[in-house]
Amino acid sequence: MSAEDRVRELGLAVPDYADPPYGGRYGKVKPFHREGNLLLLSGITPEDREGNRLHPGRFGLDLTVEQGYEAARMTAVNALGLIRLAVGSLDKVTSIGRNLCFLRTTDDFEDLHLVSDGVSQLFIDVFGPVAGVAGRASIGVSALSRRNCFELWTEVSVTP
Amino acid sequence: MSAEDRVRELGLAVPDYADPPYGGRYGKVKPFHREGNLLLLSGITPEDREGNRLHPGRFGLDLTVEQGYEAARMTAVNALGLIRLAVGSLDKVTSIGRNLCFLRTTDDFEDLHLVSDGVSQLFIDVFGPVAGVAGRASIGVSALSRRNCFELWTEVSVTP
Amino acid sequence: MSAEDRVRELGLAVPDYADPPYGGRYGKVKPFHREGNLLLLSGITPEDREGNRLHPGRFGLDLTVEQGYEAARMTAVNALGLIRLAVGSLDKVTSIGRNLCFLRTTDDFEDLHLVSDGVSQLFIDVFGPVAGVAGRASIGVSALSRRNCFELWTEVSVTP
Repeated sequence: MSAEDRVRELGLAVPDYADPPYGGRYGKVKPFHREGNLLLLSGITPEDREGNRLHPGRFGLDLTVEQGYEAARMTAVNALGLIRLAVGSLDKVTSIGRNLCFLRTTDDFEDLHLVSDGVSQLFIDVFGPVAGVAGRASIGVSALSRRNCFELWTEVSVTP
Repeated sequence: MSAEDRVRELGLAVPDYADPPYGGRYGKVKPFHREGNLLLLSGITPEDREGNRLHPGRFGLDLTVEQGYEAARMTAVNALGLIRLAVGSLDKVTSIGRNLCFLRTTDDFEDLHLVSDGVSQLFIDVFGPVAGVAGRASIGVSALSRRNCFELWTEVSVTP
Repeated sequence: MSAEDRVRELGLAVPDYADPPYGGRYGKVKPFHREGNLLLLSGITPEDREGNRLHPGRFGLDLTVEQGYEAARMTAVNALGLIRLAVGSLDKVTSIGRNLCFLRTTDDFEDLHLVSDGVSQLFIDVFGPVAGVAGRASIGVSALSRRNCFELWTEVSVTP
């Protein structure tokens, strides 16, 4: 089963970043950068195309790990939309590279990895246990734009 | 008009990292890494070559967004110097890839993107609205070296 | 003298990530990603293979710079194990690219670069003053998984 098949089977609501065109809210930024087989994605957040945020807040203060997992999973679904925009189809992904996960946390929050699992598991669900499994780091920070609780910076290998 | 032409027209004070040679203050680090067409830049701060910092401090506490925009813009001008050192001329840039922007902030600062716009706009001013527009993430953190308010980690595509 | 020779001479305890296989504690993650000559490493911490952490804590509060240097150096030794796992031998490294160093700090900690020097110096000790010297950024953050004091995200160029 292909990645596009799995997305259909899972019923994921992958956003279409072509319509309306990506950009706007954060000034002049682009949705992806490609260099050779490397697709570089940045600044992906748990927001829908109207700017509604899923679980804005801070881990350790007013958000549970379960809410974080949901937000991380939505962020990864948004990443699927960016990959489609960049290369046309998820079936052109050869493997997910690294996920750098930023979480808005208090100083004493420790379960960062349980939140980031929302990204990792979604990519495994879609791309399978070989191509979908990626490197990762989870970093707890003071602030993210618009009080988002999660932001993803990621690197993906795609076919030529 | 080429990127080098625009730099001249804008009258930007791009530092010469060859004289004196880059390095020193932060120990044994190099100014850039190149792998194929990918130029990887790191640890760029709003400091001049004598180590004078523009607006050290913290957003949400003792710095305004306007000061941050200035510091971010100066950081991007410093990046131009590193690109020149790496590939000889700004005209060899095919496009800016991603800007990972770290800001020293309080926990409740929200306008990170307005600060990072200082980087994005400078690259657009120099490289134009196609090659200059990049991906971006803005991350609010507790500490940066020497109390700098801003630090840039960026990826640039260059001609072979 | 080759990098593998230097590791032997320095008596470094480089972990074997093949036995037991890498993974487990942080869920479904992989030890490295390779795209062409670029080796992308992520989430490296000062932990041994049993999960024992060197100096968990926070800079500016309960850790000294000397402890941080030790933790950063151990993290870089762990990176050597990941490089071996990825490409078979340290002698296949052509140069270290960039080290993105995350440190768990208080808001007023300033000596981040003195901690990150533990990574930079270890790579120079092993790969020499040309191939071992890398770009770097040092970022002070609120939280890292399992209260680790240090986490490394790094990029390495290797032979085809």
